[in-house]
Amino acid sequence: MTSFPFTPLVQSLPATIPFIGPETLERSIGRVFEARVGANESAFGISPRARGAMVDAVAGVGWYNDPENYDLRMALAQLYNLPVDHISVGAGIDDLLGSAVRAFLEPGQVTVASAGSYPTYHYHVAGFDAVSHGVPYHKNRNALEGLVDAVHKTGSHLVYLANPDNPTGTWHTAAALQAFLDALPTDCICILDEAYFEFAPGDSILPMRPHDPRVIRMRTFSKAHGMAGARIGYAIAHPEIVSAFDKVRLHFNVNRIAQIGALASLGDEAFIRFVVREVDKGRAEYAQLGRELGLPTVPSATNFVAFDCETSERAQKILEGLIAGGVFVRKPAVPPLNRLVRITVGSSKERAVVAEVLRAVCRQ
Amino acid sequence: MTSFPFTPLVQSLPATIPFIGPETLERSIGRVFEARVGANESAFGISPRARGAMVDAVAGVGWYNDPENYDLRMALAQLYNLPVDHISVGAGIDDLLGSAVRAFLEPGQVTVASAGSYPTYHYHVAGFDAVSHGVPYHKNRNALEGLVDAVHKTGSHLVYLANPDNPTGTWHTAAALQAFLDALPTDCICILDEAYFEFAPGDSILPMRPHDPRVIRMRTFSKAHGMAGARIGYAIAHPEIVSAFDKVRLHFNVNRIAQIGALASLGDEAFIRFVVREVDKGRAEYAQLGRELGLPTVPSATNFVAFDCETSERAQKILEGLIAGGVFVRKPAVPPLNRLVRITVGSSKERAVVAEVLRAVCRQ
Repeated sequence: MTSFPFTPLVQSLPATIPFIGPETLERSIGRVFEARVGANESAFGISPRARGAMVDAVAGVGWYNDPENYDLRMALAQLYNLPVDHISVGAGIDDLLGSAVRAFLEPGQVTVASAGSYPTYHYHVAGFDAVSHGVPYHKNRNALEGLVDAVHKTGSHLVYLANPDNPTGTWHTAAALQAFLDALPTDCICILDEAYFEFAPGDSILPMRPHDPRVIRMRTFSKAHGMAGARIGYAIAHPEIVSAFDKVRLHFNVNRIAQIGALASLGDEAFIRFVVREVDKGRAEYAQLGRELGLPTVPSATNFVAFDCETSERAQKILEGLIAGGVFVRKPAVPPLNRLVRITVGSSKERAVVAEVLRAVCRQ
Repeated sequence: MTSFPFTPLVQSLPATIPFIGPETLERSIGRVFEARVGANESAFGISPRARGAMVDAVAGVGWYNDPENYDLRMALAQLYNLPVDHISVGAGIDDLLGSAVRAFLEPGQVTVASAGSYPTYHYHVAGFDAVSHGVPYHKNRNALEGLVDAVHKTGSHLVYLANPDNPTGTWHTAAALQAFLDALPTDCICILDEAYFEFAPGDSILPMRPHDPRVIRMRTFSKAHGMAGARIGYAIAHPEIVSAFDKVRLHFNVNRIAQIGALASLGDEAFIRFVVREVDKGRAEYAQLGRELGLPTVPSATNFVAFDCETSERAQKILEGLIAGGVFVRKPAVPPLNRLVRITVGSSKERAVVAEVLRAVCRQ
């Protein structure tokens, strides 16, 4: 048999995947990166409470995870002072984005998002045969008015927005977000990706209450909590949306150790404050480095900083120089962001490597 | 807003989920089960090597998992003496089943499987708007000829078969499986769910080579390896099928600690032999218990045993008695299997609880 009875959609999908892992790059270049600052992983470890709970949980991994994620959902409901039926837990925001696309988009329907925004969102959109309508960034920020215009023009009922933003690190104020939501059609759902909210100024976070039924907020344990490899995140949404996710999600997909670790980490606010302070320090260092090298940095409300290399060509050269120098980084591919190189705030040791290699690359 | 712009499919899907977790039952009955023998979890722990590797891996959970699952796939390729492009790793067989359904079934298309077979498979089929055509079990076994007939009659190009079977525990020989495959149309893909293969007689396992391109074998670390809560399993399939899965799967869904634990567990064959021996002992105990109580057990090639309660009503009563007595068990809902109560081979302590409660229930 030389051809398989795949669906026409799957036959037509490209073989490309949203992200190439650093391990894959390491295998292809034949060396291990000295600084792993390309995927916005946390360089500041995990909460000691989470670590202890996860180590203890290893012995119990013979039992399936609780498919309802009950304990974690209860803790989140209490934290946000919302009924528990507003909380859905998934294997990271990636998983939740898939559920949202599947719940709301039929083949051929259009969703609106910034052009160059989170690739995995667009992977799901294509994977369910829907269409992404991209709105260009404006001065490194999501163009809120442009997004609203595009929603009205396309008749879309699903818009994706990250705040703080990835890959730029920029943010809008809560007031601007509220004006954005107010300008959307009443039947338009907004996925608000808040993966980096812990690192953002307080006035950029939309208030949690009253809960706007049109907004699906997505948060994660991958960034400030330092648990990217655990694969666990959550959505805060109207109960009908949580129920819709329950109809399509994989119920046993969140690792049991991750559930237990996330619960413990949620209770360690002091640890998160420590991480935020460290990231703040690192951002300031990167800004200084950018000034020194004539690569202005974009103000960031996240755990990474985008260095502006002026042109796409120069950004590509710098990216390649960094990777050749043992620094794992990524850059946006879509204009006008393609002149940026995005560097995660690594540990102080990693930041020293970044500074050394970046200086060498810029001297060439 | 009182109604959301869900897709018609999601609106039409039932709110029921494939499995209710034991934690949910415990919350509803207000007590903790004394014996957790309802989900075919392993009662015999994990490999000491896997435990050590996973404990060590906790500190590194800040890094994302390798989305290519490279190390584990290489180890599996070596184990089975197959090229690595024949291996796909997912968050358990549940995840892989979803990828298979999505890769092969368009809305309205039919897949064939035994009526009463693994509910999560049928959950995916319904979730992608396809149709399950059920073939009744014959004498507690998958009716291979009936399945073949149904494939020809419906024109289906995807058939699901578990060998050894869940929820009956029965099996077919490799020769019978080969005859089954030979009788399928050449364009029909067979998902062969081998979750329990470690517990089965050697002559019931289809040879690994030559690899039949029409067969997708699915295996898991949830059963003999004792890592159900880790959520990791794999498919052995033609490279084109592995590539198709790559086009739709969630690339970062396998927990990093699970990847590392699975790799370590794979190297500990002595541990698996120990588990298989313990399960064998427990199956013999359950068979003896069944004889004592006039509940004949179905011969099993898995880590569970189905007790034949003669009628659906009696099985339901026994199920309720067991649950009320602190024993978590499940039973098939579909005739003719609905007269069975399925009990996992627990630890010796759990088996003692099962025996005590089952005796009490049968006396009533």
